[in-house]
Amino acid sequence: MTNAWFLDEESRDRWIFHRVRRTVLQTRTRFCNVQILDTAALGRVLVLDDKIQSAELDEAIYHEALVHPAMTAHPGPKRVLILGGGEGATLREVLKHRCVERAVMVDIDGELVKICRKHLPSWSAGAFRSPRARIVIGDAVRFILRRPGTYDVIIADISDPEEDSPAGVIYTREFYRAARRRLRPGGIFVTQATEIFYDGSGIHPVLRATLASVFGRADSYAEYIPSFSSLWGFVAASDRAVVAGLDREVIARRLKERRVRTSYYCADMHGRMLLLPPAVRKRLARKKRLSTKKRPAFVYTPGR
Amino acid sequence: MTNAWFLDEESRDRWIFHRVRRTVLQTRTRFCNVQILDTAALGRVLVLDDKIQSAELDEAIYHEALVHPAMTAHPGPKRVLILGGGEGATLREVLKHRCVERAVMVDIDGELVKICRKHLPSWSAGAFRSPRARIVIGDAVRFILRRPGTYDVIIADISDPEEDSPAGVIYTREFYRAARRRLRPGGIFVTQATEIFYDGSGIHPVLRATLASVFGRADSYAEYIPSFSSLWGFVAASDRAVVAGLDREVIARRLKERRVRTSYYCADMHGRMLLLPPAVRKRLARKKRLSTKKRPAFVYTPGR
Amino acid sequence: MTNAWFLDEESRDRWIFHRVRRTVLQTRTRFCNVQILDTAALGRVLVLDDKIQSAELDEAIYHEALVHPAMTAHPGPKRVLILGGGEGATLREVLKHRCVERAVMVDIDGELVKICRKHLPSWSAGAFRSPRARIVIGDAVRFILRRPGTYDVIIADISDPEEDSPAGVIYTREFYRAARRRLRPGGIFVTQATEIFYDGSGIHPVLRATLASVFGRADSYAEYIPSFSSLWGFVAASDRAVVAGLDREVIARRLKERRVRTSYYCADMHGRMLLLPPAVRKRLARKKRLSTKKRPAFVYTPGR
Amino acid sequence: MTNAWFLDEESRDRWIFHRVRRTVLQTRTRFCNVQILDTAALGRVLVLDDKIQSAELDEAIYHEALVHPAMTAHPGPKRVLILGGGEGATLREVLKHRCVERAVMVDIDGELVKICRKHLPSWSAGAFRSPRARIVIGDAVRFILRRPGTYDVIIADISDPEEDSPAGVIYTREFYRAARRRLRPGGIFVTQATEIFYDGSGIHPVLRATLASVFGRADSYAEYIPSFSSLWGFVAASDRAVVAGLDREVIARRLKERRVRTSYYCADMHGRMLLLPPAVRKRLARKKRLSTKKRPAFVYTPGR
Repeated sequence: MTNAWFLDEESRDRWIFHRVRRTVLQTRTRFCNVQILDTAALGRVLVLDDKIQSAELDEAIYHEALVHPAMTAHPGPKRVLILGGGEGATLREVLKHRCVERAVMVDIDGELVKICRKHLPSWSAGAFRSPRARIVIGDAVRFILRRPGTYDVIIADISDPEEDSPAGVIYTREFYRAARRRLRPGGIFVTQATEIFYDGSGIHPVLRATLASVFGRADSYAEYIPSFSSLWGFVAASDRAVVAGLDREVIARRLKERRVRTSYYCADMHGRMLLLPPAVRKRLARKKRLSTKKRPAFVYTPGR
Repeated sequence: MTNAWFLDEESRDRWIFHRVRRTVLQTRTRFCNVQILDTAALGRVLVLDDKIQSAELDEAIYHEALVHPAMTAHPGPKRVLILGGGEGATLREVLKHRCVERAVMVDIDGELVKICRKHLPSWSAGAFRSPRARIVIGDAVRFILRRPGTYDVIIADISDPEEDSPAGVIYTREFYRAARRRLRPGGIFVTQATEIFYDGSGIHPVLRATLASVFGRADSYAEYIPSFSSLWGFVAASDRAVVAGLDREVIARRLKERRVRTSYYCADMHGRMLLLPPAVRKRLARKKRLSTKKRPAFVYTPGR
Repeated sequence: MTNAWFLDEESRDRWIFHRVRRTVLQTRTRFCNVQILDTAALGRVLVLDDKIQSAELDEAIYHEALVHPAMTAHPGPKRVLILGGGEGATLREVLKHRCVERAVMVDIDGELVKICRKHLPSWSAGAFRSPRARIVIGDAVRFILRRPGTYDVIIADISDPEEDSPAGVIYTREFYRAARRRLRPGGIFVTQATEIFYDGSGIHPVLRATLASVFGRADSYAEYIPSFSSLWGFVAASDRAVVAGLDREVIARRLKERRVRTSYYCADMHGRMLLLPPAVRKRLARKKRLSTKKRPAFVYTPGR
Repeated sequence: MTNAWFLDEESRDRWIFHRVRRTVLQTRTRFCNVQILDTAALGRVLVLDDKIQSAELDEAIYHEALVHPAMTAHPGPKRVLILGGGEGATLREVLKHRCVERAVMVDIDGELVKICRKHLPSWSAGAFRSPRARIVIGDAVRFILRRPGTYDVIIADISDPEEDSPAGVIYTREFYRAARRRLRPGGIFVTQATEIFYDGSGIHPVLRATLASVFGRADSYAEYIPSFSSLWGFVAASDRAVVAGLDREVIARRLKERRVRTSYYCADMHGRMLLLPPAVRKRLARKKRLSTKKRPAFVYTPGR
């Protein structure tokens, strides 16, 4: 065991040092700094621009929580679009649903996708080679605006909107409107939606309100992700309640019919994730500003 | 803002530095090192022997999660015993139930109780002065063994069992047997039960199994506590299912009748806490060793 | 021993954590944040705006190195002016020279002086009560410009010039010119002069060149100060070589005559401090820019 | 710039974090953990078992200080033995003396030597390929005891004696006696001799006394090494004063005759290094225990 550490600067006031057993890779793609580290507590970890993106220890929880509530809420998703998701784990979860005929993944960073295929093989677990998968290296915004094609489920697995980061635009009303036009009738849009705090602070409520204003209905849900050291938020948006009201029996039946095998997601966890603490619910219910291209919402940026 | 930090050494491999705005108190009682710190991220914090015990930011969540599931599951708790709980917040939550006639709190560390009354006034919020409260400075084990008197609910709010710590004995079958003899018919014993990991590792399953072997029934539940940087476990034990099967309507009605006002606990959160991740449930279901006086279960000790 | 730490952010790339046994004081004066800490490795420490100013472990080395080379080089210093030096240790060292009739100390921060008298009593060791000492609470620049009076030795014991800090002006040609006018014939001006690096980088060479341009002669010298984790620089300036060429016998005789008792300074250490590494000497010899009011020289500022 | 750090745990109470730009290598040889890191503040660094061995920034100072005082004090060293010194920089400095006909380097760790040749090329700077150099992979103790051959200068460049480390035996009277038998008449033995503290604490005085008891004469000297964050000690031992009394002119002449080019060492620095702080000198003068095979002297071991 050596004294090498990765500092996850969660905020100016809370710093988490993770012991690193081995530095597998440190490089820079055209878009970001990439580190792949074998940590002692979290196993292998993907770090982009000094933020942990996913960890061997719990990537399954994060990716199952991102993918399955929306996929299961849809009665028969055939065409699915993934924005970002370079690790391939979101794709892996989507393809578990046998009804899916085509899963298109659009990631801007081709080098990163290659790195993940090589160094995080259990993340994609062969998904990149599936005949049902299509990988597009390109800009998600441009793809949404210019490419024809509609989808039953669209999943945004893009890093947090930080000040001056290009990801910021993905979390705005303008982008959500464009995404909505790519949904088929009854379609669902779901996105990772930053950390959730017990007191309801942070930008999650802004993102949910923005999505609700565009789609009509937007359900927040959350799970604790150890490698993010926080309660993590997601929002599923559609034109009517589908994720929130989903019946336990329906969940169980669909998972079984589609032969989806998970390590975390199930009818119980679906229910659990949608039960948000009262203070969060209260904050979500209040009127609030929306995230727009002109005034986008931002999270804390490490390194200041 | 100054560069003073408290290091929460969660394990040998994960170190969390909390920025400290002000050191309110550093002292040693007969039993432990005490620090009261105003941190930037968690607000005021009580630290005993280098472990965060509770924080202004989320002590309500921890204490409500510890107290209300058992209290609400009992149809009419009149006499309640609290073991430990020096901050006074467990007592505060217990007294919220109007039906309680007598709440006895037994803490070994009189100096600590004084410090908390003075420096953590919002934790006890006047509970120490309630005519329904009785504070006993003394050893919980001796109290359980020697003092007459029986209780409807017994709540163990004692720090984690660390190697060579006297708290260890509180988490053994022998102690649980003694505690059981102090329960009235239909009574419930509840205890904080260390960190829960998604993979079911750690000693929580051992504690639950030990309680089940003594009481007949033991329900695990969990909530994410930010200041502990982890999913925190609790176990409520009784001679039949009362906490796990509790009806939503019953919870809502009892809280209303007893005029209990909470910031976190409610029927939804009761349900959410009992929904444990599949891997944890699987591990809890497996046969396992028990914690006994001869072979007690221990958690990681910072500083080694 | 507790897990409380002070982070000395030496640069963006080197962070030194000092274990704190006890936080004696945290406060803010009109001018700066003040911390007095009992550290495990350095003993009691004075921290201003997150920078260690002096430490019980080695303050004698720093203060003897600042004071005695110039004082000893002067054949008979009677009137001495100290700029800054709030701890009182510079005054303590000056008064050790029996020939001194009047030592005037000008510090802008009256609150800080009070704090040091109370919490760092061994630093001043009674010097503040000496009938030969006069303490002026006021601005050093204004004092130098407006007050009449001349001195045999002027000692600047002022914190490093950081960006936007008012101390910056003390390290400029304009200030040095004003100080020079307060020197009696044969007088010596000496100042702490920031960290010295083996490769000659940093602003020490700029400060030395600026002093040489004003006084005619400026001798750099250096000593390793553990609590600063670096080789520390000083410059003694005068109209001819007095500090650099000082004879061993003269040093020994003057210290004896004036009954100066030191723990570190002696003829050997005088010689040692003036022997600078070749790369530093080379850099000092090169022509370079001067520090002026318009373009003052700055050191790294922690916290950015 | 990424948030990767190396923690140099100087003691239980002082931790130095160095920012790492790139992890060049992490591996384990038969004898130790090896890390080669590109740090932001110190440049490339060799770390063995979590202790910095040498750094690009200042390895020249350390190696020149280790090698040249003894080499220059000897009127004509022809055969030189280096114990340890796997980086090759000690060999590089030895070979700078043209009079050297044969330099034998004995290092136990052949893998480490290979790693250093490849990843620290500027340390050895071609010295390994010199026809005057002979590299022996083997145990220094066995070499000293069993191999014939005598030397003008023997240089011990072996890591600090830590508890339970095999290096411990190299720092004992028994080993020094064996080494002495390998010295030719007028020969000099020199060793790195751990950190020196201003108050004279630590094991340096024990090592010096042990060497003096064996060789007759042992001169301590010291220099501040930034990458070690401390004043570093060395001892040169012989049967009469040669290093301490060395004339400035002699140093300058010998360096010139032998065409030795250095970046740090010179007559001035020779003198400076031998001028030790008074408290250290006092401690060195006192009688003290010796380091023996039965009771060897140990330094602090990081990680405990």
